[in-house]
Amino acid sequence: EMPNMALDGLFVALLLSFGTTVALDPIPRITWEPRDVHLVRFQEPGVSNYSALLLGSGDDTLYIGAREAIFAVNSLNIADKQHEVRWRVTEDKKAKCAEKGKSKETECLNYIRVLQFLNSTVLYVCGTNAFQPTCDHLLLKTFELVGKNEDGKGRCPFDPAQSYTSVMVDGELYSGTSYNFLGSEPIISRNSPQSPLRTEYAIPWLNEPSFVYADVIRKNPNGTDGEDDKIYFFFTEVSVEYEFFGKSMIPRIARVCKGDQGGLRTLQKKWTSFLKARLACSLLENNSLFNVINDVFILRAPDLKEPVFYAVFTPQWNNVGLSAVCAYNMSLVEDVFSKGKYMQSATVEQSHTKWVRYSGEVPKPRPGACINNEAKAANYSSSLNLPDKTLQFVKDHPLMDDSVVPISNRPRLIKRDVNYTQIVVDRIQALDKTVYDVMFISTDRGALHKAVSADSGMHIIEETQLFPGSEPVQTLLLSAEPGKKYIYAGSNAGVVQAPVAFCEKHRTCVDCVLARDPYCAWSPRKASCVDIFKERGSISLIQKMSGDASSCTGEFFFFPKMPFPASEMTGSSWFLCFFHLSCTTPVTAGPGLMPPASSQRLCWLLPPWCLDWGGRALPHSFREPGAIFDVHVLWEKNGQKIDVCVSVQTHLLPDGKVYYFSWVKDTLRESSEYCCSFLSKTGNKTSKARITVDRQEATRQESWTRELSNWKSAVHEHDQMMQNWRKAWESCTEDNY
Amino acid sequence: EMPNMALDGLFVALLLSFGTTVALDPIPRITWEPRDVHLVRFQEPGVSNYSALLLGSGDDTLYIGAREAIFAVNSLNIADKQHEVRWRVTEDKKAKCAEKGKSKETECLNYIRVLQFLNSTVLYVCGTNAFQPTCDHLLLKTFELVGKNEDGKGRCPFDPAQSYTSVMVDGELYSGTSYNFLGSEPIISRNSPQSPLRTEYAIPWLNEPSFVYADVIRKNPNGTDGEDDKIYFFFTEVSVEYEFFGKSMIPRIARVCKGDQGGLRTLQKKWTSFLKARLACSLLENNSLFNVINDVFILRAPDLKEPVFYAVFTPQWNNVGLSAVCAYNMSLVEDVFSKGKYMQSATVEQSHTKWVRYSGEVPKPRPGACINNEAKAANYSSSLNLPDKTLQFVKDHPLMDDSVVPISNRPRLIKRDVNYTQIVVDRIQALDKTVYDVMFISTDRGALHKAVSADSGMHIIEETQLFPGSEPVQTLLLSAEPGKKYIYAGSNAGVVQAPVAFCEKHRTCVDCVLARDPYCAWSPRKASCVDIFKERGSISLIQKMSGDASSCTGEFFFFPKMPFPASEMTGSSWFLCFFHLSCTTPVTAGPGLMPPASSQRLCWLLPPWCLDWGGRALPHSFREPGAIFDVHVLWEKNGQKIDVCVSVQTHLLPDGKVYYFSWVKDTLRESSEYCCSFLSKTGNKTSKARITVDRQEATRQESWTRELSNWKSAVHEHDQMMQNWRKAWESCTEDNY
Repeated sequence: EMPNMALDGLFVALLLSFGTTVALDPIPRITWEPRDVHLVRFQEPGVSNYSALLLGSGDDTLYIGAREAIFAVNSLNIADKQHEVRWRVTEDKKAKCAEKGKSKETECLNYIRVLQFLNSTVLYVCGTNAFQPTCDHLLLKTFELVGKNEDGKGRCPFDPAQSYTSVMVDGELYSGTSYNFLGSEPIISRNSPQSPLRTEYAIPWLNEPSFVYADVIRKNPNGTDGEDDKIYFFFTEVSVEYEFFGKSMIPRIARVCKGDQGGLRTLQKKWTSFLKARLACSLLENNSLFNVINDVFILRAPDLKEPVFYAVFTPQWNNVGLSAVCAYNMSLVEDVFSKGKYMQSATVEQSHTKWVRYSGEVPKPRPGACINNEAKAANYSSSLNLPDKTLQFVKDHPLMDDSVVPISNRPRLIKRDVNYTQIVVDRIQALDKTVYDVMFISTDRGALHKAVSADSGMHIIEETQLFPGSEPVQTLLLSAEPGKKYIYAGSNAGVVQAPVAFCEKHRTCVDCVLARDPYCAWSPRKASCVDIFKERGSISLIQKMSGDASSCTGEFFFFPKMPFPASEMTGSSWFLCFFHLSCTTPVTAGPGLMPPASSQRLCWLLPPWCLDWGGRALPHSFREPGAIFDVHVLWEKNGQKIDVCVSVQTHLLPDGKVYYFSWVKDTLRESSEYCCSFLSKTGNKTSKARITVDRQEATRQESWTRELSNWKSAVHEHDQMMQNWRKAWESCTEDNY
Repeated sequence: EMPNMALDGLFVALLLSFGTTVALDPIPRITWEPRDVHLVRFQEPGVSNYSALLLGSGDDTLYIGAREAIFAVNSLNIADKQHEVRWRVTEDKKAKCAEKGKSKETECLNYIRVLQFLNSTVLYVCGTNAFQPTCDHLLLKTFELVGKNEDGKGRCPFDPAQSYTSVMVDGELYSGTSYNFLGSEPIISRNSPQSPLRTEYAIPWLNEPSFVYADVIRKNPNGTDGEDDKIYFFFTEVSVEYEFFGKSMIPRIARVCKGDQGGLRTLQKKWTSFLKARLACSLLENNSLFNVINDVFILRAPDLKEPVFYAVFTPQWNNVGLSAVCAYNMSLVEDVFSKGKYMQSATVEQSHTKWVRYSGEVPKPRPGACINNEAKAANYSSSLNLPDKTLQFVKDHPLMDDSVVPISNRPRLIKRDVNYTQIVVDRIQALDKTVYDVMFISTDRGALHKAVSADSGMHIIEETQLFPGSEPVQTLLLSAEPGKKYIYAGSNAGVVQAPVAFCEKHRTCVDCVLARDPYCAWSPRKASCVDIFKERGSISLIQKMSGDASSCTGEFFFFPKMPFPASEMTGSSWFLCFFHLSCTTPVTAGPGLMPPASSQRLCWLLPPWCLDWGGRALPHSFREPGAIFDVHVLWEKNGQKIDVCVSVQTHLLPDGKVYYFSWVKDTLRESSEYCCSFLSKTGNKTSKARITVDRQEATRQESWTRELSNWKSAVHEHDQMMQNWRKAWESCTEDNY
C-alpha cells in the first residue's frame, strides 16, 4: 500500500492509549467542541470564580455567586443579565488579611460561598471576605445587599481554597466548612437563632474533611413513625479505621436530624444525632477502589419509591486519571444509621488506637436516632431530654461499622483518563416507556459527559466541551423543568448553559438512532432528529435505545450525508464530501450529497470494514506484520487503478477487532464508479460505489446553497471527521458489518 | 489550511493520551520494532513457556528451561541450539493430575521452574511435573537427565501458575514457593541433606506471598565481625500491619543466614534467622504508592562500596498501567535487620489484631541475627545453641517495624501506561568517565525499556519490541561480560537475545548524540555511530550525555538523511525522502539525500516548529480555535503556491508546547526552492529549502544503490517515521528551536 507515514506513526500512539482500555471504560460516542453546538455563556469582565449557582423558583432566573459579585440572569438565556451587585472587601480588611501573609490579589478578596434562599424575597449570601467570613441578605426586589455584616464563621470558610457545603432548610442554614483562620477546625453546624448546633471538635467526629455536598431528605409525609427530616452531608476525610501508607482517605455520608436541639449537659449545643458511615465505591475483584468523593446528586422522582443518590469518585492513590460513579439507595443509608453496628476505638499498647466493631450493649434510646414517636412515647420529647448514657455513647461512637454500599454493589461507571468533578442526573422516559437516569458528569478539564445505562453497560452518549482552556468545572446545576431543561456549569472562567440534548445535530436517521440518546428520535416527517419532549404526540418517531437502526428505511448509510466547506487555503470552489458505504450495496448519491454545480468536485470515499482476525484479541500495538500489514488496498475508478492520494487508516477497537479504512481524494467531473478492495491472506472484500453527477442538480442549487451556509457556521470538518470515526467505531463494534 | 481530516481526528485521540502525562513520566525517545533491529530468537516448535534462563560460566552457553524441555544454546547466538533434552510427564501422572480437576493440555505438564548449577558439570532442575514437583540432575557433558526423581516439594510449585524463586548457594538450594497442591502453604526453605530448614507455617511469617526473586549476599571478605553470608528473598504478601479495603498487598524483603541450623527445641528445623521488612517505593506527596513488587536485580560492581538493588513495582489499586523503579542500598537493609525495631501483634477486643512497634526488651543474642563473632564469644557457636527466649521472640516477631526506603527516598522512575515485569541493570562508564546504571526493564507487552539517569531526570533511551504479539516478558537476564553484553528475555513464546545498544542505527552525528546512549558515540572517522566499548582508544569520538549536539559540525540537520523504498502499491520508481530542516538555514541536500537517478523524485519536506503560545500550558485537547486553529500553512515552490497534497500535523508536547509540522508531497524533477510559512496571529515563521538535483549524482549511482539495498532490508518507513517524530519531539523539547 501507499504508505501514509504520518498516519501510521500516530496510529501507534493511538494504540498505546487504547490498548489498556478496560472493559468498563466506555468512550464518548461523540465529542462536541464549543463551536459545534449552541452553548450560552455568562462572564463578566474582571469577575472570576463563578462557583455558586442557584435557580430561582418559577421565575426563570439563575443566581450566580462569583468573586466579589452576585448576578441574576435569565435562566433560559444566561447571557441576558438582569441584575448585579458587587460585594467588595474593604481596603482596611484587605490590608489586615495581607498582613497575615495572604495574597492581596487573590486570597484577600470576597469569594461568594453561600447563596441560598432565605425566603421568596431574600437570598442569604456569605463570602470569605478576606479571611473574615461574612454573611448578608440580598433583597431580590432591588437586588441590593442590606449590609447586615453577620459573622459568617462556621457557615463559610475563611480561605477560598477550603471546602464548603451548605443547605438552607426551613430558613436555617446547615453548613459544613472550617471554623478558623488556619482551616484546622472542621465543623458541621446549624445557624439558627433558636437552636444553633455544631459538631464536637474531635477526630472521631471530623478528621480533616473535604465537604462536597449537603441536602435535606424530608420525612415520609405518610409515615406513621413520627420520623424527622434529616440533613445529609457528604465529604472525604482521613480514615481512623483504616491504616495504609500515609493518610488514608475515606468517603463519608453523615447525617443530623432537623429536630435536634442538642443535649442538656452532655453535648450541649452539639448535635446529638450526628452519625457517619463509609461510602463504598469499589470493584475489589478488579482492584478498583475509589476513596475520594467529589460530588453528589440526590435524585428524587415521582416514580422512585425513595431518593437515589449518585456520587462521583476518584482514587486517592496513583490517580493518573480515573473516575467512577456509584449510585445508592437512601433506604440503605437509613438502615445503616438506624439499625447498623457502631464502631469504637480501642487502645492498643498504650499509644495506638484501633477502631473495631462495638459489640457491647447499646443504650436506649438508640444513640444518634432522631426523636420519633417511639422516643416520644418513652417520654423523650426532645434531644434535651435524652439520657446522658445515650448522649455519651453517640459522642464517643459517631462512626458506624457498616458501610453504605452502592446499588448492585459495584460502580455504575468507571472511566479512564478523566477526573470527574460534579454530577447531576435527569430521570426521563424514552418513547418505549423505559425510564432512564441520564447522568451529566463534568470533568476537571471543562468537559461534560452525558451517560446512560444501556443493556451492554454504561453508554457515554456524548462529550461536550463546555469551557475552552480546559477550566475545571466547579459547579453543575440541572434545571429539570419540562421544556426548560438545561445544564448550568460554573468554573473559574464563567458560567455555561447547555441544553440536555443536541438532537438536531444528528443529521440522518441512522445517526440519530445510533446516538442512543433517550431525549432524541428521528422524525421521518420533518426529516430531522428531534427532541421527543418537544414532539410529544408525534406517532411516527424512530427511537431505538438498542441502537438498532434498521427502522431507518429508505436511507443510504451516509455518515453524514453533508458537504463540507472547502478549505480557505485551497481557494478553489471544491467541496469535500464524505460518505460511508455499507460494504456490498451499490449506492447512488442522493441529492444531499452533491455539491453545487461547479467545475470540479472532490470526493472522499470511506468504506469501513471490521476485520476480526480469527476472533482473537489483537496485540497492543502493531507488532505482527503478518497480521495487519498483510492487508493491501486497491482502489479503482471506472475500472482504472488509482495510484495517487490513497490513504489508509487502521484502528484497534477495544474489543480486539480492527477497524481498517481507506479513502481516496479525487476530483469528480462526471458520474463514476469507484471500487475499493481490501486484499489480505484471510480473504478479500470489495465495495463499489457509483457517484452519479446529476446534471439536474444545478436547478436545485439555490436551496442547496442556503442549506450549505447554515451548515457552514456550525460545522467544522475536523470535529465532524472525529465524530464520523466514533460513529463508525460504535456501529462497527455493534453491528460487525 | 487544507484539512487532513484523518490526521486531525487521530490527533485528538493522541492528545487524550498525552494530556495526562505527568512530569515523572518520560517517553522513550526511540521505539524499535523487531524488524528494525537485529534480535536473535530461539523458539522450538511445540515448546512454550521459556521461563528459566541460566548463563553458563565462561563457555558462552545459555541454558533455557521451558515446558517439558531444557536447551543449551550458544549465548552469542541463541538461534544456535547445541543440546536439548525433553522431560515429559508420564501418561499415568497426567491422568492422575487430570482426575484432580486440572487441565491435561496445560496444567498437567512439566514446567521447568528451577534451573541452577549444582556444580560445574551438573545442573539442578525441577519441574512442576503435573502437580507432582520433581527435581533431577542434568549432566552437562551428555546433556542427559539422570532420572533421580527427587521430590520437589518446597523447591518448585505444584501449579505452574504459582510464584516461585530459588537460588543455589554452595550446592544448597534456597527456594520460595508453595508447599502443597492447593498452593495455600507458602514456604521459604533450604534443601540440604545436612540441615534442611523451612519457615513456620504461620501468617506472621508468610501471608499469601508472591515470590519474585532470591539471591545471596556474601559476607565482606575483609570483615572482622564474623558475619555470615545472607540469602535475601523478595516477595509481595498480604499485609498484617496495614488495613485498607480488602487485602492490602505489601512488598517485602526477607533474609536468612547461610549458617542457620535451626533451633534445638523451639524452631527445630525452622529458620532462626528469618526476618522480613517492608520495601517502600512511593512518592506520597504525589499520592504515588507502589505496593506490588515484580522483580529485583542486585547490582554489584567493583566501584560500588556495597551492592545496590533495583526493583520494579506496580500499584495494587486502580492499576490502569503504571510502574515504578526504586533502588536501595544493601547497607540500609542490613541496618533495618540488625538494628531496627521489631513489630508485634496485639490483641484488640478479643477478636482483632493490630501490629504495632515492639518497645519492650529485646532478648540477647538479638533475635534473627546471624551467628557472628560476638555471638560465638558469648558461647553461641550455632543457632542450635540459641536460648529459647531469643528463638521464641523471632518466632513471634519476624516482621521489622522499620521500612527499607529507597535511595533518595523516592522512585528512580515512574512510568505511565506500562506494567513493568522484570529488570536488569548494567553499570558502565561513559567517555566523560561518568558512571551510569543503565536499566533494562521489560513490560507485560513484550517490550524492553532502556533507561538512564540524566541531569533532567530519568531518560528512556529506547523502547525495543522484543516479542511480536505483545507477549509478557517473564524472565530477563543480562550477560555483562565485556564484548559479550547481551540481554536475554524469556516469554511464553520464546527467548530473544538483544544487544545492549543499537548504536549503528543512529545514522547521523546529531542523532547519535541526541540518543544520549552511554554505550554509543559518533565516530567522525567512520562517519557512523559506534559502540564505545568496541572503539576504545579512538580519541575523536563524540558523546554528550547532555544531548548537546553542537559538536556535530559540518552536518546538515537531517532526520534521517536516508531514502525510503517506494511503496510496492505505487509500482513506480519513485522514492520518498524525508528531511527535517532547522527553521532558518537554507539547506542544500547532501549526497545521501538524493535518490538514484530516475525520471521522477517524490520528496516530503518536514520543517518543524515549536510554538509556545505565550508560555502557558496548552489545554488538554484542541479546545481553543483562536489559539491553534488560527495557524495557517503556506507552501511555495519556486515562488508558486502549492495547493495540493499539503498535510498538517500538530502535537502537544508534555511541557505544554505545540509541535506543529506540515509536509508536502511533490515530484522532484529539477532543483527547486521550497518555502513554507506558518502564519498565525502571534507571528509568522518562514523556512526555505533548496533541493538541488545534482546531475553528477548519477555517476555515484552504484555506491548509492548498494547503500540503499543495505538499508532496504532493515528500514521500514512506518517505524522510521515514528522515530523521526520522537526525535523531533525530543530535540524540540530540549533545544526549543
